[in-house]
Amino acid sequence: MPFITFEGGEGSGKSIHVRRLRDRLAARIGDVVLTREPGGTTLGERLRGVLLNRPAGERLEPLSELLLFEAARAQLVAEVIAPALERGATVLCDRYADSSLAYQGYGRGLDVGLINRLSTVATGGLTPNLTVLLDVPVELGLSRRQAQGGVNSLDGEDVAFHERVRRGYLEMARREPARWRIVDASGSIDEVAEAIWSVVREWLG
Amino acid sequence: MPFITFEGGEGSGKSIHVRRLRDRLAARIGDVVLTREPGGTTLGERLRGVLLNRPAGERLEPLSELLLFEAARAQLVAEVIAPALERGATVLCDRYADSSLAYQGYGRGLDVGLINRLSTVATGGLTPNLTVLLDVPVELGLSRRQAQGGVNSLDGEDVAFHERVRRGYLEMARREPARWRIVDASGSIDEVAEAIWSVVREWLG
Repeated sequence: MPFITFEGGEGSGKSIHVRRLRDRLAARIGDVVLTREPGGTTLGERLRGVLLNRPAGERLEPLSELLLFEAARAQLVAEVIAPALERGATVLCDRYADSSLAYQGYGRGLDVGLINRLSTVATGGLTPNLTVLLDVPVELGLSRRQAQGGVNSLDGEDVAFHERVRRGYLEMARREPARWRIVDASGSIDEVAEAIWSVVREWLG
Repeated sequence: MPFITFEGGEGSGKSIHVRRLRDRLAARIGDVVLTREPGGTTLGERLRGVLLNRPAGERLEPLSELLLFEAARAQLVAEVIAPALERGATVLCDRYADSSLAYQGYGRGLDVGLINRLSTVATGGLTPNLTVLLDVPVELGLSRRQAQGGVNSLDGEDVAFHERVRRGYLEMARREPARWRIVDASGSIDEVAEAIWSVVREWLG
């Protein structure tokens, strides 16, 4: 069964839309597992806290950050994603290995080849069948996040960082069009949900 | 200046003896930095909590555990060890990359080549000049730990696990005798401290 991931910058609406899609798919095809990264497991949620709620002044090396995301990812694949796919469920994941390429690679400048090698180790090479990129201008995404009050340690990065992340995502999507679909996420929640549903329905065939 | 690591199983006395050695070296050569793994940084100590104080029933994949140790290691090297060595300090570290080989490799059966590759990424290839292995029979080490009351999540492993770890350490030490020194750690604290001091003094020349 398919493994579908959602990607995008801050405030692109991934967590809302991955739930909306889950509800629609569950009504149509039954066994749908929704999870998220970092998180999705007891360990992963503890690491999410380590990564996203950092004490003021704590240093976090980009390489160390990458290895933490890979640790959470390895746990998530082994404990949740792989068993669900094996029993025939459809798996939706809010962020996956492409987030490391976008944030630690394009965003922070870590070597993309290194990130790919580590992600392959962590996931055992498990790649999504479909990746939905929710693309939104950086200023709009960040202003949505501020309006929600859900600011985390990554939101403290400057606008140039988020621009690099966005450019990275668009590059990855254009390079691998068979797997990626780009959805304009600047509209209303209902508009974006419809755009996602039409993309996914078409992909499911 | 030298980078010296201490390795050994549970209850081998590493944390006591690395401090004793620090005191003796500091009196003789001045700038000595003592650190430990996992830990040694704000991030590392938080990860130490994630690794060693796990909620009952939390699953931790061996690969995920390895990646967490590597994340803590990358942070420790970048934030503490490399800068100290660069300014000319002697660095003593309670556990380092060899612990991953012993515990995750020999203990849990993860591929030793994979562990070496990940440790090389995390440390940038920084290898100790001297590694002191405190070797103690497993039963004695575990009974010391119980007497101290300092039981952590790793101590819950069975005796066979700790036997594999011990055998792994001895194999590594025998394979690379220029870097390793094996010290019998089954004696009293003062006896072991003297044995370590004589090994280190001879090595320093």
